[in-house]
Amino acid sequence: MHKKLFIPGPVEVKNDVLQKMATPMIGHRTKEASKLQRDISEKMMKLFYTKNQVMLSTSSGSGLMEGAVRSCTRKRAAMFSVGAFGNRWYDMAVGNNVPADKFEVEWGNPTTPEQVDEVLATGKYDLITVTHNETSTGIMNPVGEIGKLLKEKYPDVVFCVDTVSSAAGAKIEVDEWGIDVCITSTQKALALPPGLAICTISEKAIEAAKQVENRGFYLDLLKLYEYIQKKDHQYPSTPSTPHMFALNYQLDRILEEGLENRFARHIEMAQYVRAWAKKHFELFPVEEYASNTLTNVKNTKGISVADLNKKLAMRGFMISNGYGKLKEKTFRIAHMGETTLLEIKELLENIEDILGL
Amino acid sequence: MHKKLFIPGPVEVKNDVLQKMATPMIGHRTKEASKLQRDISEKMMKLFYTKNQVMLSTSSGSGLMEGAVRSCTRKRAAMFSVGAFGNRWYDMAVGNNVPADKFEVEWGNPTTPEQVDEVLATGKYDLITVTHNETSTGIMNPVGEIGKLLKEKYPDVVFCVDTVSSAAGAKIEVDEWGIDVCITSTQKALALPPGLAICTISEKAIEAAKQVENRGFYLDLLKLYEYIQKKDHQYPSTPSTPHMFALNYQLDRILEEGLENRFARHIEMAQYVRAWAKKHFELFPVEEYASNTLTNVKNTKGISVADLNKKLAMRGFMISNGYGKLKEKTFRIAHMGETTLLEIKELLENIEDILGL
Repeated sequence: MHKKLFIPGPVEVKNDVLQKMATPMIGHRTKEASKLQRDISEKMMKLFYTKNQVMLSTSSGSGLMEGAVRSCTRKRAAMFSVGAFGNRWYDMAVGNNVPADKFEVEWGNPTTPEQVDEVLATGKYDLITVTHNETSTGIMNPVGEIGKLLKEKYPDVVFCVDTVSSAAGAKIEVDEWGIDVCITSTQKALALPPGLAICTISEKAIEAAKQVENRGFYLDLLKLYEYIQKKDHQYPSTPSTPHMFALNYQLDRILEEGLENRFARHIEMAQYVRAWAKKHFELFPVEEYASNTLTNVKNTKGISVADLNKKLAMRGFMISNGYGKLKEKTFRIAHMGETTLLEIKELLENIEDILGL
Repeated sequence: MHKKLFIPGPVEVKNDVLQKMATPMIGHRTKEASKLQRDISEKMMKLFYTKNQVMLSTSSGSGLMEGAVRSCTRKRAAMFSVGAFGNRWYDMAVGNNVPADKFEVEWGNPTTPEQVDEVLATGKYDLITVTHNETSTGIMNPVGEIGKLLKEKYPDVVFCVDTVSSAAGAKIEVDEWGIDVCITSTQKALALPPGLAICTISEKAIEAAKQVENRGFYLDLLKLYEYIQKKDHQYPSTPSTPHMFALNYQLDRILEEGLENRFARHIEMAQYVRAWAKKHFELFPVEEYASNTLTNVKNTKGISVADLNKKLAMRGFMISNGYGKLKEKTFRIAHMGETTLLEIKELLENIEDILGL
C-alpha cells in the first residue's frame, strides 16, 4: 500500500507532475533543451522574487550547499546553525579545507540578527550560511531581518541561505533580503521527486568566486554560471532532463495557484498543526520562530513514535521520528508542497485515534 | 515531432522504463528504499562481473569521476586521454589541486598498455584514469590489457575507468580487469534518462581514500561507502528515487535479454555501421580500437553535418556532429542501449537518401 508522506521530504507528488518525469528523451545540447532550462529559470525567478541568475544542478541540495561554500569563501566562513542541516554546512567547509567557524544555538532556538551582528563585528568573515528552515528542529529563521542587517552593516559579506525545505512553501524575497546564494531542491515544498537542486546567484557571489582558487569541477558555481551564460542555459554535464520537464510543469501549477495563495495555505496548515500540537503535546521550537512547512512536536506524553508510525503505516500515512539525538523525543509532521488542510486534518484524526487522545 | 536519438547520450528510453520514473514517492530512510538500492547493487554487480561494492550518486558521471580522482589520489595521478572526456578528468584534478599529469594521444588513437607501462615505470603515480569508450573520437580502449599490466607490475596503483558510454553495451569485467573504480551513468548504453551515476569501488580504492584528506563532502567516495555500509545501502543525501526505480527495472530487462546477447547485439550494430562508414566515408578512429557503442565517421565528402542533421530531424532522427575541434570534420552515430540493427539500417538508409549516396 502506498503511504501518504507527511515527512520532511520526499513529499507527495501529484500524478500529472509525476507523469512529466516520463517525458521521452531530448538531446541536452539542443535549442529545445535551452528553452526548457530558460523557462524554468524565468519561473524560478518569480518564485524567489529575484533578478539573479537561476542555476540547476543534478545533485541533492547538499551538492549546491557545498558548491556555494567552497566556491565563494575568500577568507573565512561563519556557519550559523540551528540544527543538523546547519551543522552539515560546517562539515562541508571542513571537508574542503575552507576556513570556517560554526555558531550553533541550543536546538529549538533561531539564529538572530543580533547573533549574526556580534559574529560579523569581528571582521573575520566574508561569507555566512544560514538555514532558512531547519527540518531537524522545526525552526524557521528570520532570514529577512538578517539580510537587512547585512545590507546595512556588512555589504561585502556573501549571504548563503539554505531554503531546501521552505522554497515554494514560504515567501522568500531573494533581492529584498539580499541573499547572494539561495539554494533549494525539488523534493520538499516544490513537491517534485528528489534529484535536482536549484540556486540563485548574485553578481556579488560571482565576483567572490572569481577570487577563489580550487573550486573543484562539478559543484563549482562559477563554472556553472559561465557555462550557462555562454551556452544559453545549457550545463557542462548532462543534466537530469526528467526533473526539468517536471519542474517546468510544476512551476506552472504553482504560479497558477498563486504564490500568495500558496504561502497562505502553508501558514494555515502550520497554524492548525501547531494548535493541535499544543493541545496534546508541546511545540519543540520557540513558537515565534516555528516553521510554516514542518512542525516538530515535543513528545511530552512519552509515546513510542516508532510504534505510532507503524500503526499509521497500516492506515496509509507516514510521519517522521525526531532527527538524530531527538529520536523518540520529538516527532515531525511536514505540511508542505501540495498537501491540503483537509489531508492534515485526516492525518491528525488518525493520530488521535491511534493514541486515544 | 519526437526525434529518435542516435546521439551518444541521452539515448532512447523504452516507454515501460520511462513509466518507472513516474513511480509514487517513498521515504529515502525506509526499508523499502534500502531494498531498492540493494537490489540495484546486486544487479549492477552482475553487469560489471564484480564482487566490489556498487555505489550510486545523484549526479552526472562527471560527479563520480571527480570524486574518484579527488578521493583516491594519494601522491600523483596519471590521466591517459584519447579525447575530450579523458581531458576532462585532468581538468578535474587541476580544479581540485590534485597533483596530476595528462598523457594525451593524437585523437583517433588508443591508450595502449605500452604507453601506460612507460608512464608508470617512472614510479611517480599511484592512480591512473583511463577512458574505456571515448565518445569524442569513437575509440574503445583496451582496458582489459591495461588492467593485466597493472595486476602484474603495478598492483598498488588505483585504476579508475570511465565506462560512462560503454557499460551495458560492452563487456566490462571489473574484477578480472582489476578496475578499482569503474564509473558509469544512466543515459548511455544503460538506456535510462540522465541524472544518476554509478560506480563500483574496490577495497584498494577505499584504503587509498582513507589516506587522503580534503576529499570534500558530496562526492567523497569514502563517505558514500561508509554510509551505505552502515545504513544498509542508504545514502547521506536524498537520492533520485525515480532513477532508482527505473534503473532497477531496466536492469531486469537487461539481464533478461542476457548480457552476452546484449553485447553481441552492440557488436553487430557497430560492425554494420563501420562497414557503412568505410563504404561511403572513412572511420575516424583506428579501426582496431573502434568503439562498439558509437561510430565516429570522418567527413571525407565534405558534407554539411549541420544540414544533414536538420534534414534528418524532419524525418524524426538525430545524430551528432563532431565533438569540439572535430565539428563538421566528423559525424557520430551512436548504436547503444535498446537500439536495434533494424533501426540502425533505417537511419542509414535515410542518411543515404538525404545525401544521395
